[in-house]
Amino acid sequence: MLLERTTAQIGALYAEPMAEAQQRLDSLIKPPGSLGQLEEIAVRLAGITGNPRPRLGEKAIIICAGDHGVVAEGVSVAPQEITCQQIPAFLQGVAGIGVLGRLAGARLVVVDVGVAVPVDHPGVLNRKVRAGTSNIAVGPAMSREEAVRSLEVGIETARAEIERGVTLLGLGDMGIGNTTPSSAILAALGGYTPEEATGRGTLVNDQVLQRKVEVVKQALAVNRPDPSDALDVLAKVGGLEIGALAGVILGAAAGRVPVLIDGFITTAAAMLAVSLQPRCREFMLASHLSGERGHRTMLEHLGLAPMINLDMRLGEGTGAALAMHLVEAAVRVLNEMASFSEMGLSELDESMILK
Amino acid sequence: MLLERTTAQIGALYAEPMAEAQQRLDSLIKPPGSLGQLEEIAVRLAGITGNPRPRLGEKAIIICAGDHGVVAEGVSVAPQEITCQQIPAFLQGVAGIGVLGRLAGARLVVVDVGVAVPVDHPGVLNRKVRAGTSNIAVGPAMSREEAVRSLEVGIETARAEIERGVTLLGLGDMGIGNTTPSSAILAALGGYTPEEATGRGTLVNDQVLQRKVEVVKQALAVNRPDPSDALDVLAKVGGLEIGALAGVILGAAAGRVPVLIDGFITTAAAMLAVSLQPRCREFMLASHLSGERGHRTMLEHLGLAPMINLDMRLGEGTGAALAMHLVEAAVRVLNEMASFSEMGLSELDESMILK
Repeated sequence: MLLERTTAQIGALYAEPMAEAQQRLDSLIKPPGSLGQLEEIAVRLAGITGNPRPRLGEKAIIICAGDHGVVAEGVSVAPQEITCQQIPAFLQGVAGIGVLGRLAGARLVVVDVGVAVPVDHPGVLNRKVRAGTSNIAVGPAMSREEAVRSLEVGIETARAEIERGVTLLGLGDMGIGNTTPSSAILAALGGYTPEEATGRGTLVNDQVLQRKVEVVKQALAVNRPDPSDALDVLAKVGGLEIGALAGVILGAAAGRVPVLIDGFITTAAAMLAVSLQPRCREFMLASHLSGERGHRTMLEHLGLAPMINLDMRLGEGTGAALAMHLVEAAVRVLNEMASFSEMGLSELDESMILK
Repeated sequence: MLLERTTAQIGALYAEPMAEAQQRLDSLIKPPGSLGQLEEIAVRLAGITGNPRPRLGEKAIIICAGDHGVVAEGVSVAPQEITCQQIPAFLQGVAGIGVLGRLAGARLVVVDVGVAVPVDHPGVLNRKVRAGTSNIAVGPAMSREEAVRSLEVGIETARAEIERGVTLLGLGDMGIGNTTPSSAILAALGGYTPEEATGRGTLVNDQVLQRKVEVVKQALAVNRPDPSDALDVLAKVGGLEIGALAGVILGAAAGRVPVLIDGFITTAAAMLAVSLQPRCREFMLASHLSGERGHRTMLEHLGLAPMINLDMRLGEGTGAALAMHLVEAAVRVLNEMASFSEMGLSELDESMILK
């Protein structure tokens, strides 16, 4: 019910504020369009918020954590315990996202959607749908009901943040083994081969990479997810935190707040969200191009252009945190640059070309 | 003399602090190398400064302005007066770099190296070498002595900033017509054809682009710059602000301060600086990939990887300003993330792969 209501609530961008923002940008003391994607972001924020001069206030990064039964296949180098162990470091501000979230001025919201063990930390939202997924190499990750529930956890989390006044959301993931289901989602929804969709994740050598490709192949063969049914794909080859991240996107779009996706896992979530409701694509911004193979394919599939390329492959929302500064820059340009007429100058104009 | 002393003063990166920084990064609670280029930047800053735990303090963007006799050939859409007219907007904080420099927390230093008219603004450093270059389509831009002087203006400006305590420099340019000499520099120093080296600059249509290519061709044919002599290239087909920007790079490298290059014009300056002293390459960071054709070629020629890709083509140092946040992020990661042992966790290790 919440899922259906939310996808139904997602509308189109508001055309009039976008046109007004574009007009303002074209009047500023620079050649029209010369700030490139920064201008597009400013216009998009006008269309999302309905405000022709949008500003950013509070920012938050929602990090969804979950575990994956598929680690039994030896697809991950790191032990599953790391999922739970990293959480205190996020909240103490000493993990990657702790440091970069603080630099971005963003609050971190850590949600346990499916960590395998009890997460006993006061700062973590306990929204556990179940204690980790089943092994997708031998059967579905979860039931269809659990898939819906994971999406709704994300929707509810986004909603609560928007009610608190958040104006920009970022996505982060934590889950040992989660590149494998993300590759399976890419292959299933995008129609790519397991080879095209599978990368090295963390510290994976050629031998483990080959095993990952085989596991993705097997997961698709055993489960036969229906590419026209995102819920089926999520339930059969997805993950609990991946579902929740897709839910955060849907909740952000429904609440008309822009949402920055991060790397490979959050972009797999974006593919699910777009499959559930194509209109949510307009509410997403691509922060960075990850070093993980397949991420470029995902972004191209979604028609999104990443702003940053630092060959990062940590996850946790670190790319989304870095890109918040660029979104801030976009709205500052729109609000703080002067126009030619305000400076008493004549405008640069395409017509000058033929003078 | 100052030029020779400065190039001689530029040394190699300090190996020991780099190794120490790398070791610290590898001990942090993340898979080794997973923060990609952010880690490389942190290590490079250790090598530049000699401090294994570098921090950033004051930041400045040095914007060098100059005019170009080649505008007589109709290579630019905007009138030459814009060079001078934009300067007050920089200093009032309402031009692109005004807004983005403020967001970056960087002071702007605007230097008149060769604006065609007197710049009567109290905030501008008057270091005019001459009032604009000559038309490179019919003869040299300037004399060899003026080329040296323009470089020295940049060296002196960088030095003064470093003496004031600046820890990170960014480069910006202002000069109507300056993509044409920058293309000529790329062609001359890099061995590319005028077609490969020439792009649209600002608002240029197919017809003007063709004219620009012809002008670059003519400038190279008339002047025959010696590709093994950067001073000859600068004097014959360069620009006064381009020389000064190359000087800022040399001054920054000599003073062991990292310097962020910006777009097409500042990267042409970087090519000159590297040609004068190859060791200065290690002190430069590439901020963004500009929308100007040829910029990618320049960066590849220099072996630099841009951090940001927003299809910007404004110049002024806007890309360098945006990237300052990412350099800040790099040092924060190094200084503020916890190590596995500090968290009482066992390290992720390549050896895990074969377990």
